[in-house]
Amino acid sequence: MTELVLPQDSNLLGNILGGRVMHLIDIAGAIAAHRHCHRQVVTASVDHLDFLNPVRVGDLIVLEAQVNRAFHTSVEVGVDVFSEDSVAGARNHTTTAFLTFVALDEIGKPVPVPPLIVKTNEERRRYREAGERRKLRLKARKKI
Amino acid sequence: MTELVLPQDSNLLGNILGGRVMHLIDIAGAIAAHRHCHRQVVTASVDHLDFLNPVRVGDLIVLEAQVNRAFHTSVEVGVDVFSEDSVAGARNHTTTAFLTFVALDEIGKPVPVPPLIVKTNEERRRYREAGERRKLRLKARKKI
Amino acid sequence: MTELVLPQDSNLLGNILGGRVMHLIDIAGAIAAHRHCHRQVVTASVDHLDFLNPVRVGDLIVLEAQVNRAFHTSVEVGVDVFSEDSVAGARNHTTTAFLTFVALDEIGKPVPVPPLIVKTNEERRRYREAGERRKLRLKARKKI
Amino acid sequence: MTELVLPQDSNLLGNILGGRVMHLIDIAGAIAAHRHCHRQVVTASVDHLDFLNPVRVGDLIVLEAQVNRAFHTSVEVGVDVFSEDSVAGARNHTTTAFLTFVALDEIGKPVPVPPLIVKTNEERRRYREAGERRKLRLKARKKI
Amino acid sequence: MTELVLPQDSNLLGNILGGRVMHLIDIAGAIAAHRHCHRQVVTASVDHLDFLNPVRVGDLIVLEAQVNRAFHTSVEVGVDVFSEDSVAGARNHTTTAFLTFVALDEIGKPVPVPPLIVKTNEERRRYREAGERRKLRLKARKKI
Amino acid sequence: MTELVLPQDSNLLGNILGGRVMHLIDIAGAIAAHRHCHRQVVTASVDHLDFLNPVRVGDLIVLEAQVNRAFHTSVEVGVDVFSEDSVAGARNHTTTAFLTFVALDEIGKPVPVPPLIVKTNEERRRYREAGERRKLRLKARKKI
Repeated sequence: MTELVLPQDSNLLGNILGGRVMHLIDIAGAIAAHRHCHRQVVTASVDHLDFLNPVRVGDLIVLEAQVNRAFHTSVEVGVDVFSEDSVAGARNHTTTAFLTFVALDEIGKPVPVPPLIVKTNEERRRYREAGERRKLRLKARKKI
Repeated sequence: MTELVLPQDSNLLGNILGGRVMHLIDIAGAIAAHRHCHRQVVTASVDHLDFLNPVRVGDLIVLEAQVNRAFHTSVEVGVDVFSEDSVAGARNHTTTAFLTFVALDEIGKPVPVPPLIVKTNEERRRYREAGERRKLRLKARKKI
Repeated sequence: MTELVLPQDSNLLGNILGGRVMHLIDIAGAIAAHRHCHRQVVTASVDHLDFLNPVRVGDLIVLEAQVNRAFHTSVEVGVDVFSEDSVAGARNHTTTAFLTFVALDEIGKPVPVPPLIVKTNEERRRYREAGERRKLRLKARKKI
Repeated sequence: MTELVLPQDSNLLGNILGGRVMHLIDIAGAIAAHRHCHRQVVTASVDHLDFLNPVRVGDLIVLEAQVNRAFHTSVEVGVDVFSEDSVAGARNHTTTAFLTFVALDEIGKPVPVPPLIVKTNEERRRYREAGERRKLRLKARKKI
Repeated sequence: MTELVLPQDSNLLGNILGGRVMHLIDIAGAIAAHRHCHRQVVTASVDHLDFLNPVRVGDLIVLEAQVNRAFHTSVEVGVDVFSEDSVAGARNHTTTAFLTFVALDEIGKPVPVPPLIVKTNEERRRYREAGERRKLRLKARKKI
Repeated sequence: MTELVLPQDSNLLGNILGGRVMHLIDIAGAIAAHRHCHRQVVTASVDHLDFLNPVRVGDLIVLEAQVNRAFHTSVEVGVDVFSEDSVAGARNHTTTAFLTFVALDEIGKPVPVPPLIVKTNEERRRYREAGERRKLRLKARKKI
């Protein structure tokens, strides 16, 4: 997903608003989850996000989303965000986000999702790390 | 900050999109940071978010933001999000978010922010916990 | 309700559009009416509005709405609008609006609304003045 | 100015939001004022508005704006709003609004506007009534 | 249909986006088709468009749409687009578009539309040319 | 570029508006042109478009854009549009568009663009056909 950053998305200093980036991350993640699950999905959680580099008006913002792992009724999606200064051609890493989406049936109840088949080493690494992040999330939730 | 959830903010099941909630959290947080710093601010990070309860079309969404602690050129802001079923009058906790905003001068360079004076026990607790969250964030960043 | 004035809300001179302020007044008023009536509401009228001070891009716009009086199937809501120059910290009065909202049932018919209990002198003054404004409105309507 | 009322403009009952109508009134009025003054204009005031008939999703909303009178640095514009049920072909009067716009120069200072030449009886009536409304506005402002 | 070009509609050079103009053309055309057919309509095709002159932020964009000819379940609508520099008063031709809209019943099936009665020479010319354009469209479609 | 079709993009029958599709086509095309030219670009023309299949609320809309040929100061971009019913997994061809974008320098004057190097047979076919379409466009323009 690639979007052109227009004046309407920015603050007075010409930077895209953090909330706009989060909105795009959620949409890119939801599309990837939607395609895997063949179901309506809702966002259940978003992991900690660092905005490493500002995105400027006139830049392109590029979002790459992939499903890392399917659990029982949910999937973890990773979204890498880059800004691309299309005049100079340079690309900067803005942030990486991990989101959990839950698949819902027609009346809004969670439903089991198809398993994710992993083939490459890269996919296996993502699958394993998604499992570790899930453990940390469940542990953090218990503390509250 | 209170907003009415309109059809345009929702998915096909009548739930507000997670990305729209994140966008509102960022705006509510930025306003609180802006008021404390008397400066333009940019979002530097957002901690892990759980969406505990769905927000429905026709609900009110209520966001309460306060600055928890000022650091050198940044502040931590906490944002509590509730949905309010205005017909039944019930209020549900949607999520709590912790964001870091950096204050910028006219040319976009970070500038020192005013200290936060805490008076009540509640404010002191928030101040202390913001310090602990900051340590965890710095620790996590080193690992990457 | 506090909103950040973004470039997308403004004209070429950097002032927020009057129509955008009216839109925000209507939303802030509808939320207050909605909460009092526990019903869907529609705007029935808006009293004369003077825009006393311009609101600039980068300012905060602060709207404070309260129900002044409940009539049979409608309520009068007052909305005070301020702009806040968050860098200098100054607050200017933009306008004060009085709106009437009618409460509707599920099929869109007007329904009686709960009475408003007034306690403080300030609330009693608002209640009394809302009655006077209503008389003027009914008188003006007859003339047409 | 004719607009199609889309789902995104409406509340849960399928009526267009009052604030959206006010926003359109302001734009239609500003365009008429802009064309007369050949200058940037800002909204200075809006007279009392009654919403006589609801506008439904799927209707057309038709706005007819004309400059009624030019004063020293401002003009009064009248805007008639109709909804048009394009399937049945019926047209309903929604509201009539009177707005005052001030013409501004490049640095945002009020500037004199060209006089309005009135020719028909209809135009003369509007011109005279705009003068009467202006007197009432100035009188009301003194009372505050 | 007249619209004020606002900063949110423009690119970094202060020109309105081509896609925004196309969106307005589609709305203006749909309104004209809707009014003729007294039915919901969908866009079936848009003929080749040349953007002859840029439209600048602060300009007015004026769209004039008329039904040129009714076929069995569709109509051809012509839309002339002008930009108007309201300060200097000059008007430039931006583009002329020809769109085909199909009328649909309540379940989304095409339905016959009323015939178009043409009276003036201008209307007869448009009617005849719409027929010629239709032949070219059908011929081009066969080639694919 | 993949977008989720939300209720706010649709008409009363649940179909995405033709104008919204055109807007997305223009953005997808501009991004491809922008990346090739490393310059700001403006839309100069759009060839005839047929909307072959409706796009429904809840579908994904997928846009694939590539530069077909570079001319002196302009490029032709082709955009294929598909809708994807993510529940059933089916993909339908919505339309194919050919747009011309002109590259502009900092003051808005056309500037030469880099040549397009074509390697595959597919790229060579697109290159050749872009040249033929250009001839037809120039011929049609002379007639007006």
